Amino acid sequence: MAGVLQDLTPREEGIAAVSRALAFPWAFGERTLPFEEAAGRRIMRPIIAPEDFPPYDRSTRDGYAVRSVDSHGATPANPVFLREAGEVVMGRLPTFALGSTECALIHTGGILPSGADAVVMTEDAEATKGWLEIRRAVQRMENVLSAGEEFRAGDVLLPAGRRLDFRTLGLLAMAGIGSVPLPDITVGIVSTGDEIVPAGTARLRPGQFRDVNSVLLASSLREEGYTSRFFGIAGDDRESLRSVLFRAMDECDVVLVSGESSVSMRDHSSSIMEELPAPGLLVRGILMSPGKPTLIAGMARERKLLFGLPGHPFSCFVSWYAVALPLLNAMIWGSAEGTWTSVHLPAAETIFAQAGVEEFTPGRIEKGRVVPLPVKSGFAGALTHAHGLCRLPASQETVRAGEEVELWLW
Amino acid sequence: MAGVLQDLTPREEGIAAVSRALAFPWAFGERTLPFEEAAGRRIMRPIIAPEDFPPYDRSTRDGYAVRSVDSHGATPANPVFLREAGEVVMGRLPTFALGSTECALIHTGGILPSGADAVVMTEDAEATKGWLEIRRAVQRMENVLSAGEEFRAGDVLLPAGRRLDFRTLGLLAMAGIGSVPLPDITVGIVSTGDEIVPAGTARLRPGQFRDVNSVLLASSLREEGYTSRFFGIAGDDRESLRSVLFRAMDECDVVLVSGESSVSMRDHSSSIMEELPAPGLLVRGILMSPGKPTLIAGMARERKLLFGLPGHPFSCFVSWYAVALPLLNAMIWGSAEGTWTSVHLPAAETIFAQAGVEEFTPGRIEKGRVVPLPVKSGFAGALTHAHGLCRLPASQETVRAGEEVELWLW
Repeated sequence: MAGVLQDLTPREEGIAAVSRALAFPWAFGERTLPFEEAAGRRIMRPIIAPEDFPPYDRSTRDGYAVRSVDSHGATPANPVFLREAGEVVMGRLPTFALGSTECALIHTGGILPSGADAVVMTEDAEATKGWLEIRRAVQRMENVLSAGEEFRAGDVLLPAGRRLDFRTLGLLAMAGIGSVPLPDITVGIVSTGDEIVPAGTARLRPGQFRDVNSVLLASSLREEGYTSRFFGIAGDDRESLRSVLFRAMDECDVVLVSGESSVSMRDHSSSIMEELPAPGLLVRGILMSPGKPTLIAGMARERKLLFGLPGHPFSCFVSWYAVALPLLNAMIWGSAEGTWTSVHLPAAETIFAQAGVEEFTPGRIEKGRVVPLPVKSGFAGALTHAHGLCRLPASQETVRAGEEVELWLW
Repeated sequence: MAGVLQDLTPREEGIAAVSRALAFPWAFGERTLPFEEAAGRRIMRPIIAPEDFPPYDRSTRDGYAVRSVDSHGATPANPVFLREAGEVVMGRLPTFALGSTECALIHTGGILPSGADAVVMTEDAEATKGWLEIRRAVQRMENVLSAGEEFRAGDVLLPAGRRLDFRTLGLLAMAGIGSVPLPDITVGIVSTGDEIVPAGTARLRPGQFRDVNSVLLASSLREEGYTSRFFGIAGDDRESLRSVLFRAMDECDVVLVSGESSVSMRDHSSSIMEELPAPGLLVRGILMSPGKPTLIAGMARERKLLFGLPGHPFSCFVSWYAVALPLLNAMIWGSAEGTWTSVHLPAAETIFAQAGVEEFTPGRIEKGRVVPLPVKSGFAGALTHAHGLCRLPASQETVRAGEEVELWLW
C-alpha cells in the first residue's frame, strides 16, 4: 500500500510522515466555554487582548505621586519639600493634576494624576503640615506600571493550543476575556484482551487482570486538556475488536486502542487498519523501547486518526505520550509538539541502554540528579514516583553516573 | 503578644514557627470518593495494597514458557529441542504443568504453567511438528514478571498527601482500589480593594480593575488538589473586611485574603488578626521578595489558619506558593513541603539579586538553560511562560549567565 512505512520507523520520522500523509492540521469545529469552566483545556485559537493593560499609569507602591524632576537631588541629608495637592482615591480617576513641586498621596494600584510620572515610596518621605519631605530621588516611571506595559490591545495573550491553568486563567481574568474557543474533538479509548476486566472489578477470577490502560490514558488525556470517552474492553477475536473500533471511529475524532503487545491482537488491529480508507495503516511499529508495537492509521477524507498502543501500562503510556500526543497536537494545531519540558541533568547512577533504538525510562529528580526508575513490564513504582521520562536517543548507549541525561519533565 | 515574631521572618523559619505554634498536623475529617472521581485530589491517608500484583508469574512476551535449565547452551548453531505440552489460554490459570524438556505456547500477560520459570521469545524459537527449536538460552525469570514483583499485599502504594494523577490513578486501578479517602477541608478566598471588581466584569469604569487573584488562587488550589470557595471582594474599610473574613473563617478551614500591598489594607488585616483567639497573628511579614507583606494567623483550638497575601498577582502567587501551600500541607499531613521539584540549571542570562533577602523570579527553560522572565508588578507575560520560580536564597547575590540557579519546577 502506498504510504506504508515498512518495518520499524524512527519516532520523529514516523510522526512527520503521518503529519504529511494526513495533511495536518485538520479543520475542526469549536465550542465556546466561559473561561473559568475551561480550566485545564487547550484553546483552539490565539487569545487576543481586547484592551491595553493597565489602561492608565498605576502606582506599584504606597507613597506619593510626584513629577520625577522635582525629586532630583533629594537625599536624607538634603531633602526636597513638595506641597500635597490631594489624595488619589482607589477605583477612581484622579480629579486633579499635579503642578510643579506638587505631590499626591497614592496607594498601591492607584492611578497617577496627570503631570505625575513617578512614585516616592512612603518609607522615603515624611508628611508634615501640608508639606512632604522627600529623602530620595526617583527616576521617571519609578514605582509605576505604565499604561499598556503588561499588554496592548491586539497583542497575542495566549497562543493557539495553550492549556488554561493557574498561569493563564489569571491573565484572562485580568484582560476581561469572558469565554474561550475550544477544539470540539473527542478521543475514544478502547482496551483489549480476554484476560482484562473493568478497572472497578473488586474480585478477580484466577487469570483475570484489571484494565489499567483506559484509566491511565483517560487521566493523562484530561490532564493534557482533552476530552475522552471509553468504549469498553474488546475480546481477543477480530470481529469483536472490529465492531468496537468502528463504533469508536464513528463517534470520535481519534481512537486509542491498547493491547498490541500480543501478536494476535496486533495482527487483528493491523488487518483492521488495512481495511480503512486511504491512506489507512501508515506506521507498523516504531524504533523505540518501549513502544515498538505502536500502529498508526488515518483516514484523510473522514478525518480520523487511530493508534494501536502496547498493552503493558508503561509501554502504553510511553507510546501515547511520545507518539500519539504530539500527533494529536499536530492534527489540531499543525505542530507535532510534545507537552514535556526537556532538561539535561546528571544521572545519579548508570543508565544502561543499547545503541540503535530510542529508549525511555522513568526518571526521578533527587538532589538535582536523575535517578532512573527500573520498569520491568508493569509500571507501579516506576511511573508513580517519576518526574518525567529519561530519553536516550538511538545514537546513545549507556549513560554513566554523572554524565548528563535528557529528562522530559511532565 | 506571645508567639508573635517581630519584623520580617525568613520564610522557612516562619513556616516552621507557625507549624510549631499551631501544633500541626491537625486532625481533619475525611470523605471517601470513588477513585476516578478523585482525580486531581490529594489522599488523606496512605493507600495500602490489598493483594499481591501480579498474583501469579506472568509472561512479558509472546513466546514459549520453559524450564530455564532446559534452554541452557542453546544457540542458533546448537539449538535445543523441547516438546510442546500445550497453550496457555489468556484469562485462565493453566490446567497443565511443564515436565522436563517440555514447553508451552504463551502470550504476553499469560500465566506461567507450574514448572516453567522463564519465557523464550517467539523470535528465538521455531515450532516444527510438535517440537520447538530454541536458539537462545534464557535465565530463570527472563521475560517473566514474577508474582508480587510490582507490589505485595500490605505495601504502601501511595503515601498520604499524594495527588491522584495519571501516574497514580492507573496504579489504583491495577490494585483494585475502589475508593479513596480525601481530607474534608475547604479553603476560602477573599479579595479586597475598592478598585477591584469581579473577574467577569465586561466593561470597567475608569479606575476599576478586575479581580485576578481569586481566579489565580482558585485555579492553583484546584491544580494542587484542594477545594476552594470564593467569598467575594471586600472594600477597603475595616468593617467590611472583618465581616467577610469572619464569615469565611466560620465556613472554611483555611482563608486566603489578598490585597495586603496597600498599607491601609494591611493595617486592617493585621488588626483583625490581632483580635483572633490564641495564638492569633504569628507572622507580620516575610523576608522575601516578592511576598514581603505576607501575614499569617491561626487559632489553635478552633483549627483555623489565615493568610494575608499581597495584592499584586505575581506577589500573591509567590506568597501562596512558597509560604501558604507548604503550611497547608503541614496542617493536614504534618510536613511543610512545597509541591515543586527543585533543579539547578545554568542561567541563560544574568539574574540580578540583592543579598539578605530570598528572591523569586519566574523562569523559563530554553535549551536546558533558565531564562529569567522580568516581572514588574503585573504578571501577565511572566507567569504565563514560566516553567517555575527561580529561587535566589538570601545568601546569594546576582547570578551570572552560565552559573547555576535553583529553579522550582511547578
